[in-house]
Amino acid sequence: MSEVSLHRPFPAEKVGQWDMETDIAVVGFGAAGACAAIEAARAGAQVTLFERASGSGGASALSGGEIYVGGGTDAQRAAGFTDTIEDFAAYLKAAGGAFADETKCDLYAREALEHYGWLKSQGVPYRGNYLPGKHIEPVDDSTLIWSGSEAAWPFCDIAVPAPRGHVIAHSGWGGGRPLVDILEARAREAGVNVVTDARAVALVQDGTGRIVGVVVRMANRDRFVRARQGVVLCTGGFAFNESMRQRYCPETFKISCPIGDQDDGAGIEMGMGAGGDAIHMEQFFTTCPWTMPEPQAFGVFVNQAGQRFINEDCYHGRVSRCAVDQMGDRVFLLLDIAHFDQPLDIARIAIAATGETWEEVEAELDMVPRTLGATMAFYNEHARQGRDPLFHKRPPMLTPLDQGPFVALELNFESSYFSFFTLGGLRTSAQGEVLNRAGTPVPGLFAAGRCTSGLPAWGHGYSSGLSLADCTFFGRQAGRKAAA
Amino acid sequence: MSEVSLHRPFPAEKVGQWDMETDIAVVGFGAAGACAAIEAARAGAQVTLFERASGSGGASALSGGEIYVGGGTDAQRAAGFTDTIEDFAAYLKAAGGAFADETKCDLYAREALEHYGWLKSQGVPYRGNYLPGKHIEPVDDSTLIWSGSEAAWPFCDIAVPAPRGHVIAHSGWGGGRPLVDILEARAREAGVNVVTDARAVALVQDGTGRIVGVVVRMANRDRFVRARQGVVLCTGGFAFNESMRQRYCPETFKISCPIGDQDDGAGIEMGMGAGGDAIHMEQFFTTCPWTMPEPQAFGVFVNQAGQRFINEDCYHGRVSRCAVDQMGDRVFLLLDIAHFDQPLDIARIAIAATGETWEEVEAELDMVPRTLGATMAFYNEHARQGRDPLFHKRPPMLTPLDQGPFVALELNFESSYFSFFTLGGLRTSAQGEVLNRAGTPVPGLFAAGRCTSGLPAWGHGYSSGLSLADCTFFGRQAGRKAAA
Repeated sequence: MSEVSLHRPFPAEKVGQWDMETDIAVVGFGAAGACAAIEAARAGAQVTLFERASGSGGASALSGGEIYVGGGTDAQRAAGFTDTIEDFAAYLKAAGGAFADETKCDLYAREALEHYGWLKSQGVPYRGNYLPGKHIEPVDDSTLIWSGSEAAWPFCDIAVPAPRGHVIAHSGWGGGRPLVDILEARAREAGVNVVTDARAVALVQDGTGRIVGVVVRMANRDRFVRARQGVVLCTGGFAFNESMRQRYCPETFKISCPIGDQDDGAGIEMGMGAGGDAIHMEQFFTTCPWTMPEPQAFGVFVNQAGQRFINEDCYHGRVSRCAVDQMGDRVFLLLDIAHFDQPLDIARIAIAATGETWEEVEAELDMVPRTLGATMAFYNEHARQGRDPLFHKRPPMLTPLDQGPFVALELNFESSYFSFFTLGGLRTSAQGEVLNRAGTPVPGLFAAGRCTSGLPAWGHGYSSGLSLADCTFFGRQAGRKAAA
Repeated sequence: MSEVSLHRPFPAEKVGQWDMETDIAVVGFGAAGACAAIEAARAGAQVTLFERASGSGGASALSGGEIYVGGGTDAQRAAGFTDTIEDFAAYLKAAGGAFADETKCDLYAREALEHYGWLKSQGVPYRGNYLPGKHIEPVDDSTLIWSGSEAAWPFCDIAVPAPRGHVIAHSGWGGGRPLVDILEARAREAGVNVVTDARAVALVQDGTGRIVGVVVRMANRDRFVRARQGVVLCTGGFAFNESMRQRYCPETFKISCPIGDQDDGAGIEMGMGAGGDAIHMEQFFTTCPWTMPEPQAFGVFVNQAGQRFINEDCYHGRVSRCAVDQMGDRVFLLLDIAHFDQPLDIARIAIAATGETWEEVEAELDMVPRTLGATMAFYNEHARQGRDPLFHKRPPMLTPLDQGPFVALELNFESSYFSFFTLGGLRTSAQGEVLNRAGTPVPGLFAAGRCTSGLPAWGHGYSSGLSLADCTFFGRQAGRKAAA
């Protein structure tokens, strides 16, 4: 018998006997896998969902349960925001930068309202209210927050700003868990056969190149699962796979905290082995939660040369990603006493210096005279006029920081909590078909979520909720297409 | 009969009849292919070399014919430079950054002197002299130049600086052509069968996964070439393939001038289709030739916020690559009258502003007051003390620019000549075996040069001569391994 490997499909003709049969095998029980399974089952297919852990969840359950939706939702309208499909699509493309998949952006912009309604009809609760301000996640059960760089330059010049982060009604952080629970319940009701403690270790391919099954390791035994209509990979990114990071995304070694559910890139490996293309593999999201407590969002960032490098009213992840691009091993967040509060413990942001003047802070940081101090004098002079002519930071975050005492917080790429996950993955059509390098579908193979490159394509443009939007919406597309 | 495709190997069992047979098929007749063919033929193999153009050359023949060699060459020693294998290896690794292949760096550092001797023994002439100063290529027939960032921070703190660019004796630019001519002559003498106007369009793979041949299109007909010992891909990068750039390296669309011999990535596609891994695909080299005429190397760069961003005494390509990272569509090169000369026509660098003071230049550029002017005041004050405390530029390039009139040259990412080529490609062992995603060789498949990821792995660390060093040295390794 041939060897079972993540790296190449097992030949169907060498399968002695199928241990299980199903129409569609979904691999991975996060939000993408759950949505794919629900849609496939409702379309009439027999669906078996394999999850290597002992229950549903994946990286989705570790998230805030926030989904990026625009185009004029009830919550947006109730809060007085006008959002259009065109503005929404324009923002999605800007957030993807050079890496954007315009077809996916356009499709999602057109269908996001329907998708939001679908989520509600699955039982995902939304209180419907708007929470102003800058939040990583609401700490109460609010629905609508600003979760990206919509109101910040240059995005505000590209698309009319509107808040688009829609958070499941849930008190406190961690709305991802109840979101997945609800989706799991719908999947089970739809008749999806859920098999846990079952790790997919290889695809099975027939002589024509079609994916016809998957090999699943259960209780230390390989089971051959025939999937008559195909396999849907929803296995997450590769933030926890050091070999893949070394080959495809080595810049992540500058920071230290992968997040996710031990995402090992297995689905990307299997998909590539079956001829699937993997794209944008060097892209990653990172953030250090510097905007909490909220007053800290008023701060100014400088690099070790004392230079600003971004309008700090951008999404915290965009600021953090640009920070990691700076030379050296740290950047500083500068605050005055009015806007300073103790950073979150988990952020591991230390107080690097304090002073009655910015010059004292500069000296305490051993920085070259007239670097940080000059930067802050320049910033404050313009902020008093309501302007940031260099980086276009806008009110209310644009405010003078000129009443001491002052503090410099250190965001250190090694020791602070720069969480990250990978954004590159399998290239898929907007219907969730895995595409080969010639751009045509690998028959019988589908994928969604972070084992693909999707809406969140560019680390510098990430916005909260983009990944769950991508997982849930394109998970549904993949499930439907597989069942078609 | 199956379809012939770059994207997947043609099955050997479906080859009706072989049109040609050889021990080793080398694809591509640049420097890498020539060196692979020479070594394979001298090892006793029957070698056939296929080139899609009508003669040898490839991107190598369009280059300066400069090879990065260190560790104590005759030219280095004659000029009074002490270089060690350890320093050379340390520089190679620093130049590769997070993307460095340490095994290749160490092997090349150890064997570079032997390799340089081998090149000379093939008849590559070196005058042996040292040409001080900062040159893109010597305009005379000098041998040894500074061709990277060796003497610049932080490289100078990592490895004792030494010049390592070794240029073929040849008057004027374009030493790549005579270099390839010499290698071609050696290949023909060694009995290599050269077939031109022959484009490889598919690999041929047997049922065990071994590469056993190549399909070559000649006179609009596909010929099946059996290669008993294997195929060596030396087909270059993908700078001229817009689809591949979109998928793997979209940041290159910010600049406009691919260089090379219509490098279409065909070898990378074929190698991936055969199961080869492709790594670091988002990396690219770029440069705008701003250090010529030589006085311009004394200039200072600022971005549109008037900030410096690099020690400008780094290699021109490193400075250019960092320039492309800056926000906006241009950067400015600032010079005083003593150091200004008309830029090269080919660079398409325009004079954006002039002034008697830096403040006048700033105003003429419509920049915010006290940005560029303050930057230059700060720079000049420290330069007069022989210091650049922020970016560590060093003498002699560190010199005050404080005697007007002054000029700002515009390097525009769209309209200036930012040439680029891609650095990502097939992952190979140091012996030139193409590795699959599990890290084991694809039997019968070898590769070298820019269809692989090699010594020049990181756009920000590129140094002139690294690519030809990689092509010639690892081309030889691949040829030897294929013949072994």
